[in-house]
Amino acid sequence: MSDGPSAEDRLIARHFAPLAIDPGAFGLTDDAAVITPPPGCDLVVTTDGVIAGVHFFPDDPPDKIARKVLRMNLSDLAGKGAKPVGFLISVSLPANVDDDWIASFAAGLGDDAKHYGCPLLGGDTDRTPGPIAVSITALGMVPKGAMVRRSTAKAGDSVVVTGTIGDSALGVRLRREASLAQRWRLTETMLAHFQQRYLLPEPRNALADAVLQYAACAMDVSDGLAGDVAKLGRASGVAAAIDVARVPFSQAARTAIAADPALIETALTGGDDYEIVLTLKPEKLSTFFAAADKAGVAVTEIGRIMAGEGARFIRDGKPLAFERSSYSHF
Amino acid sequence: MSDGPSAEDRLIARHFAPLAIDPGAFGLTDDAAVITPPPGCDLVVTTDGVIAGVHFFPDDPPDKIARKVLRMNLSDLAGKGAKPVGFLISVSLPANVDDDWIASFAAGLGDDAKHYGCPLLGGDTDRTPGPIAVSITALGMVPKGAMVRRSTAKAGDSVVVTGTIGDSALGVRLRREASLAQRWRLTETMLAHFQQRYLLPEPRNALADAVLQYAACAMDVSDGLAGDVAKLGRASGVAAAIDVARVPFSQAARTAIAADPALIETALTGGDDYEIVLTLKPEKLSTFFAAADKAGVAVTEIGRIMAGEGARFIRDGKPLAFERSSYSHF
Repeated sequence: MSDGPSAEDRLIARHFAPLAIDPGAFGLTDDAAVITPPPGCDLVVTTDGVIAGVHFFPDDPPDKIARKVLRMNLSDLAGKGAKPVGFLISVSLPANVDDDWIASFAAGLGDDAKHYGCPLLGGDTDRTPGPIAVSITALGMVPKGAMVRRSTAKAGDSVVVTGTIGDSALGVRLRREASLAQRWRLTETMLAHFQQRYLLPEPRNALADAVLQYAACAMDVSDGLAGDVAKLGRASGVAAAIDVARVPFSQAARTAIAADPALIETALTGGDDYEIVLTLKPEKLSTFFAAADKAGVAVTEIGRIMAGEGARFIRDGKPLAFERSSYSHF
Repeated sequence: MSDGPSAEDRLIARHFAPLAIDPGAFGLTDDAAVITPPPGCDLVVTTDGVIAGVHFFPDDPPDKIARKVLRMNLSDLAGKGAKPVGFLISVSLPANVDDDWIASFAAGLGDDAKHYGCPLLGGDTDRTPGPIAVSITALGMVPKGAMVRRSTAKAGDSVVVTGTIGDSALGVRLRREASLAQRWRLTETMLAHFQQRYLLPEPRNALADAVLQYAACAMDVSDGLAGDVAKLGRASGVAAAIDVARVPFSQAARTAIAADPALIETALTGGDDYEIVLTLKPEKLSTFFAAADKAGVAVTEIGRIMAGEGARFIRDGKPLAFERSSYSHF
């Protein structure tokens, strides 16, 4: 009888099993993986996914798509102060996706899994009549009870954000309408910067230890800074007052906004930043900044937590009014 | 400014947050959930999903779709001897899916989460230009080092399977071609049995403790008994010799096979059984059977593990030759 491995099993064995280097993944030859949590640790779990035509362009390089969806999940772990443990992936592929595409996808996934110390633990592959879709569930760990929450900001805290804001959202605009590069007066370097930031976020996992040690409250910025800070404010029952002049923008973003001032809204409300916004007591700022510097992650103080609820983005003494503060699918 | 919850956040708050009763889920108001593993336990993680038009019919009742995908994952945990801890869900919905659909989906999900003691820990919702797609990652626990593997069957072990085999695969055939009911000479009760088994599997989580205690090797049967037993044989480096006459079929399946003997292949190789196949030393059979009886799960000895590799399904002294032993997407 024909009882050899199925085509699906062969696909997994060829492309994904080599990534499953954690002993608990059993080389993807079992129904489930095993995690032995270190004593005194909590596990932190999160899930996030992408769909072609919604979260990425179908002709984006497959290795970048793989890296991006893993990094989206790594960013959630970083925002909670968690160290990566491993991940499971669900991949749905239309029939026209060939073996080369899958090989490139798996290679990108494997490179990032190694780089971030987050091995593949398990997965599921399906053929779909729809677009390419990838969902990842990532697991991380923190000392017991130490996960940094979204709901624990206190009036008086400083608000800090990592990296720069808005590059990815502006990068998507450029990807959709290449002629904007000229209108925004971008140099080649700026254009490349936007493209890179949209294709491949840089999750701030190097900062996770410092977040764990110093932050009162933290979350990753993935649906737009304005909406995410408002979420943090609502969850904590406080108001965040953000000084727009202090929000860190790249030189490319500053150039684009100077050419078209309306882009400030795109930058502040567009998604896919994968930075961390956190609050901490002002007296901890200098030690936190030193730790961030050591971790190689740029951080900027952008505002203050006050009584109230939600967020206000203040420019020239007046709150900015956004048409839509946050990315939403519904 | 408009910094209230987004439509996506409201959807989650309305339909899914009420299911997130585990304190570590924070009512789905944070970026991640926390699990505090009991001391001395390993976590067992698995992921499985469904796509409309591939794994279910788009007009299947939404509560059943939700229950099925959760039960598929619960079945993987049961096959490893693991007790459910919780799950994360990723839901991709086309724009034409309305609030009533989502409400029914969430209600079914919540009922099963409660019934199986497997609370919602987190999730991700997206709009998709493709078909409805749902992916779940389930977490379970076992005593440290105790997860029952697929690769640990030994020559001399008995092979046992739970429940009945093939009902779901025959149910799908009927769903596609209603006139088969007459050709297969089914009563109304038999027809209802097939429909029920296809729509709503009964994962054998009640047997997980006994699997943990007595099984040498186990896995859930989800891609067809023939292919899955072959997988078990390959993973263990042994051959499973299965006596087809002993494979448990429902009265409905026996009636259909009597009317059309070729259906034996559909029954043995079709997927979606969500039973458990396990091996154990023959001297443990009687205590295991008593434990299964106590758990209310029917179990049947169907064969023996021998030297060799893979699986042989033997009828009238000769191995059956299957066209395709296993369900595969690729």
